Amino acid sequence: VSRILPVILCGGSGTRLWPLSRDDRPKQFLSLTGSETMLQLTLARVGDPAIFDPPMLVGSYQQSSELEVQIAEGGIGSFTLLLEPCARDTAGAIALAALSAGRPDQIILVMPSDHLIPDRAEFVSAVQRARPFAEEGWLTTFGITPSRPETGYGYIRCGGDLGGGVFEAARFVEKPDAVTAQHYLDEGGYRWNAGIFLFRADAYLAELDRQAPQIAEAARAAIALSPAGSHSILPDHDAFAECPRRSVDYAVMENAPRVAVVPVDMDWSDLGSWDALRDVSARDAEGNSVTGPGTLIETRDCLLRSTGVRIVALGVEDLIIVSTGDAVMVVPRGKSHLVKQAVEELRSQSPELLFSENPSRTAED
Amino acid sequence: VSRILPVILCGGSGTRLWPLSRDDRPKQFLSLTGSETMLQLTLARVGDPAIFDPPMLVGSYQQSSELEVQIAEGGIGSFTLLLEPCARDTAGAIALAALSAGRPDQIILVMPSDHLIPDRAEFVSAVQRARPFAEEGWLTTFGITPSRPETGYGYIRCGGDLGGGVFEAARFVEKPDAVTAQHYLDEGGYRWNAGIFLFRADAYLAELDRQAPQIAEAARAAIALSPAGSHSILPDHDAFAECPRRSVDYAVMENAPRVAVVPVDMDWSDLGSWDALRDVSARDAEGNSVTGPGTLIETRDCLLRSTGVRIVALGVEDLIIVSTGDAVMVVPRGKSHLVKQAVEELRSQSPELLFSENPSRTAED
Repeated sequence: VSRILPVILCGGSGTRLWPLSRDDRPKQFLSLTGSETMLQLTLARVGDPAIFDPPMLVGSYQQSSELEVQIAEGGIGSFTLLLEPCARDTAGAIALAALSAGRPDQIILVMPSDHLIPDRAEFVSAVQRARPFAEEGWLTTFGITPSRPETGYGYIRCGGDLGGGVFEAARFVEKPDAVTAQHYLDEGGYRWNAGIFLFRADAYLAELDRQAPQIAEAARAAIALSPAGSHSILPDHDAFAECPRRSVDYAVMENAPRVAVVPVDMDWSDLGSWDALRDVSARDAEGNSVTGPGTLIETRDCLLRSTGVRIVALGVEDLIIVSTGDAVMVVPRGKSHLVKQAVEELRSQSPELLFSENPSRTAED
Repeated sequence: VSRILPVILCGGSGTRLWPLSRDDRPKQFLSLTGSETMLQLTLARVGDPAIFDPPMLVGSYQQSSELEVQIAEGGIGSFTLLLEPCARDTAGAIALAALSAGRPDQIILVMPSDHLIPDRAEFVSAVQRARPFAEEGWLTTFGITPSRPETGYGYIRCGGDLGGGVFEAARFVEKPDAVTAQHYLDEGGYRWNAGIFLFRADAYLAELDRQAPQIAEAARAAIALSPAGSHSILPDHDAFAECPRRSVDYAVMENAPRVAVVPVDMDWSDLGSWDALRDVSARDAEGNSVTGPGTLIETRDCLLRSTGVRIVALGVEDLIIVSTGDAVMVVPRGKSHLVKQAVEELRSQSPELLFSENPSRTAED
């Protein structure tokens, strides 16, 4: 049995966890749930050599040195770096990876680099359930059993039972409003779209050729023009610049004829906000989660996180307080969506706060 | 008409405004309500040379260089420094000043260095009302018309009308509980004890001799043994160490036979807590008071104060957030009494946070 090639998408940027995450230090490079970074946890998840090939990391050219540091710290000896010359969203990034996979029928596991999946065994077991379908040419995706009417995630509706605990995907839906999300939960059969996919490289490329030929064409040209003999895969900039910006969901999955869903009943979070991070953080008897120097008096149900000065929280409840070397943010639980607005304001007001204090290494390392 | 000698008590230490105030940087040295420090505002209040002599500043030996800097920055050309060799509370400190006043019948105005009195004209006018009584040997004190049933201040009950808007003091009462404070307001005739006094040096010393001879004796010995020809007045350490620690209220005022109260109807605050400072701070249309770099979104009725990194407050109400170069504190309005408890905890946990980051000069200068 041939092994699965993990393709880890590392190119995402994001500041939803500002002030901890920065333009040049997105959350995959942060230690959010323990000492390892989200990328290192993702690498460890696909570390079993009986099942997985050495991973391929797809990241931006600018991130290459950070990627190498994280890989080395994660103890990964063998890997492939695929450095996107410019950002063209996930459909194009995955096309580059599929074209670089070696064999056309290589099974690849596409994963974000910044999601939380604590149960590795359950994850690998779901991948194994998906594998026979991927081998037959299905584009398989993983659907997380929803635990609440979350409006921050996309949903997949399960259709016909394909056997082996796998279903046809009946419909992909974008982030719903609260009423619709509750309706999905009540109705059942809806799963959270985790953005994790297992498929044969050629099956993906064939569907891309059919639905989004410009993406496939730009990726093929970029790979064809990449320099030979390089340490990393370096697709040609000008060729890839022609690639339309599309997500894999939108460009391929939503309208592909043979998409399968593997329902997975495990904890999962995209850690897409401070509230999401708080939800998965270990708490003490008072409901507080404290990382870094903190002094708490009469304080309950708070998330305190400092990579900078000591946070002293007195008589507060349900607050998220984050302190770094150059900013401190305070937001009540349930309102961390306001971070996006703050980041937009800071972009004109104090743009240096969107970049890490020390671009090479910061305090949370 | 001879002029009044202002005696400004600068020896107080305190961390009730931690993390802004520190053991070595009490609030008289901080700019809390504008660009000038509380001490500089106090000096300016008695700056009219038609009424006041150059001030005498009574402070600790350790504070002497900070005092000189503040005086120079405040533009005070002529002054006397009286440096207490050890802290013995206000009764002893005032005794040293009274003995150093030059003439026995010198009228001295004793004032804390860290109180807020925005209306200088009303203050000076009250001093002028008190003056005839002080000249006759009364120990006069100033009673602020209470605006709320404050439990953080002592009260003075006005007795018989002495004319000229001045009353006999019927009773001094310590900080009352909330019910008692409300009772004082309802009953009327009670005033806040502002800790400001006008009296003849000899009248004070005579009453001290009668009620607390050990204090008077220690102060006399300390002054007698102070080195001649020095730039500052330097009372002898060993002699003054014998002085009992007593407040002027307790040692003298509460039981003196001829104490007069000058009621004053003006804004006044001892700035004894973050809540007190918030109460007197200018606010914007959203009720926020922001000093230093701040970004506020959907935030109301907050006090934000940074001498360090930018504070980003999102969706919060009624919070006090203070950021310095080495700590950040968050406390809801109405709970700033918890700062005291935090400081006690930090004294063992992280004692360096009780001292200023840069003992010579800090960010708020």
